[in-house]
Amino acid sequence: MSAKPPHDDVAARLTRSPFHAWLGLELTALGEEWLEIRMPWRDELVSRKQPVPLVHGGVLGALIDLAGLQAVYAQGGKPSGTAYMHVDYHRPATKPPFTVRARVLKLGRTLSTAEAFVYDAAGQLVASGRGGYPNSG
Amino acid sequence: MSAKPPHDDVAARLTRSPFHAWLGLELTALGEEWLEIRMPWRDELVSRKQPVPLVHGGVLGALIDLAGLQAVYAQGGKPSGTAYMHVDYHRPATKPPFTVRARVLKLGRTLSTAEAFVYDAAGQLVASGRGGYPNSG
Amino acid sequence: MSAKPPHDDVAARLTRSPFHAWLGLELTALGEEWLEIRMPWRDELVSRKQPVPLVHGGVLGALIDLAGLQAVYAQGGKPSGTAYMHVDYHRPATKPPFTVRARVLKLGRTLSTAEAFVYDAAGQLVASGRGGYPNSG
Amino acid sequence: MSAKPPHDDVAARLTRSPFHAWLGLELTALGEEWLEIRMPWRDELVSRKQPVPLVHGGVLGALIDLAGLQAVYAQGGKPSGTAYMHVDYHRPATKPPFTVRARVLKLGRTLSTAEAFVYDAAGQLVASGRGGYPNSG
Repeated sequence: MSAKPPHDDVAARLTRSPFHAWLGLELTALGEEWLEIRMPWRDELVSRKQPVPLVHGGVLGALIDLAGLQAVYAQGGKPSGTAYMHVDYHRPATKPPFTVRARVLKLGRTLSTAEAFVYDAAGQLVASGRGGYPNSG
Repeated sequence: MSAKPPHDDVAARLTRSPFHAWLGLELTALGEEWLEIRMPWRDELVSRKQPVPLVHGGVLGALIDLAGLQAVYAQGGKPSGTAYMHVDYHRPATKPPFTVRARVLKLGRTLSTAEAFVYDAAGQLVASGRGGYPNSG
Repeated sequence: MSAKPPHDDVAARLTRSPFHAWLGLELTALGEEWLEIRMPWRDELVSRKQPVPLVHGGVLGALIDLAGLQAVYAQGGKPSGTAYMHVDYHRPATKPPFTVRARVLKLGRTLSTAEAFVYDAAGQLVASGRGGYPNSG
Repeated sequence: MSAKPPHDDVAARLTRSPFHAWLGLELTALGEEWLEIRMPWRDELVSRKQPVPLVHGGVLGALIDLAGLQAVYAQGGKPSGTAYMHVDYHRPATKPPFTVRARVLKLGRTLSTAEAFVYDAAGQLVASGRGGYPNSG
């Protein structure tokens, strides 16, 4: 662990990933404990079109995974990747943009844990979960 | 539960989803117990480029989620979506194409459970996990 | 879903289970959103004695599982059991008594989700997790 | 990682834990890939008595957790504890004795992963899951 990186470092680390850039992710808030990332709509992310188009659960899982990792990084951790994640799906994700809020549960020497909550444009919780991130040492 | 659908129904259900179509997924095997889906490389799926490009963990999670759901469907279940998933990451996903193999653990009246294993082109296990799928009744 | 049950109903449901009674569980707080259950030390719960005795992770998992179910019940849900749970271990559980705090994430028609956090006597987070609980209809 | 320990070491490590001894656990098989542990009935483990007594889900979770750790140890790993676990519940656990079968999914340098399946006396799958175990170095 080291000092917390400045806002611009966290924002830059988020979008450096080609997948994150393709998703159109943006760091929208970085607080003492929580950070917030926004994801816009993309037609390619649709799971099924009927009766109303909804975002694929795998994409929401990716959001939870990556937001947790960014939260560890923002707290001064050195996450080298993801060891595991767990996702619960609560409601269909039909109303963009989506916002994921994440915070660290435990900043560990070898493994850190974070939780994340995905909300739709109406502020409804659509998915939530947690991940574990090994430190690169 | 009902009779197992024929191969072509399972293959068609898989690619009907815009996200699955964008990923380029293909049903490559459908056995008594296991089914197998192949995913090719796409540059947009890359998590980071250095030292060698690797597929984003969220995409591997999506593969596990969707393969489990297809396995429930292939056994005659009526999955309406995903309730939860858990994913373990074992190795960097650098060698395409990737193959996910899935099978049902329990075909339930209200909730079915499946597990899935993602392999790279060298046959190495890169990720694995499980999901729960509510029946639509 | 129905009206929230009174405090004494929640406390009585908790200790009706022989396993809960053997663990010596007690409902210590029941708020609008969170409930709190206390677990004392028992020598039979020890995972290993050296260098200092610590409670078995399986017991902490049981605490998370049951606290989440009680939280669903306390919100007016009708949990028939547990469908799945996920537990993260943060620190060795060496300082009794332990307190688990749980709250509902989503009260659903067919499945409810709750999260729970286990603290030791020093207020340190030792484990946390989440569970899914099917409604009995 | 090191050489696989002999059968008697694995059996002894299992029952050295006071909680395991109280549960009455016994190593019943140790194969190349899988190991098997048996758990008898105890009245204190009952979740609810009506309509028929069943073992508490938290106890089944503990079985999955500990069997996975033993599987890592049996393969030559050095598990220092459990980092996380995920459990799926498939059927009520009413028919003792119970048998848990576990195997390693990935023996890692810093984290190993294992999966485990719990069966009742009739051979029915009652619960299954997976855990992650950090290596002590």
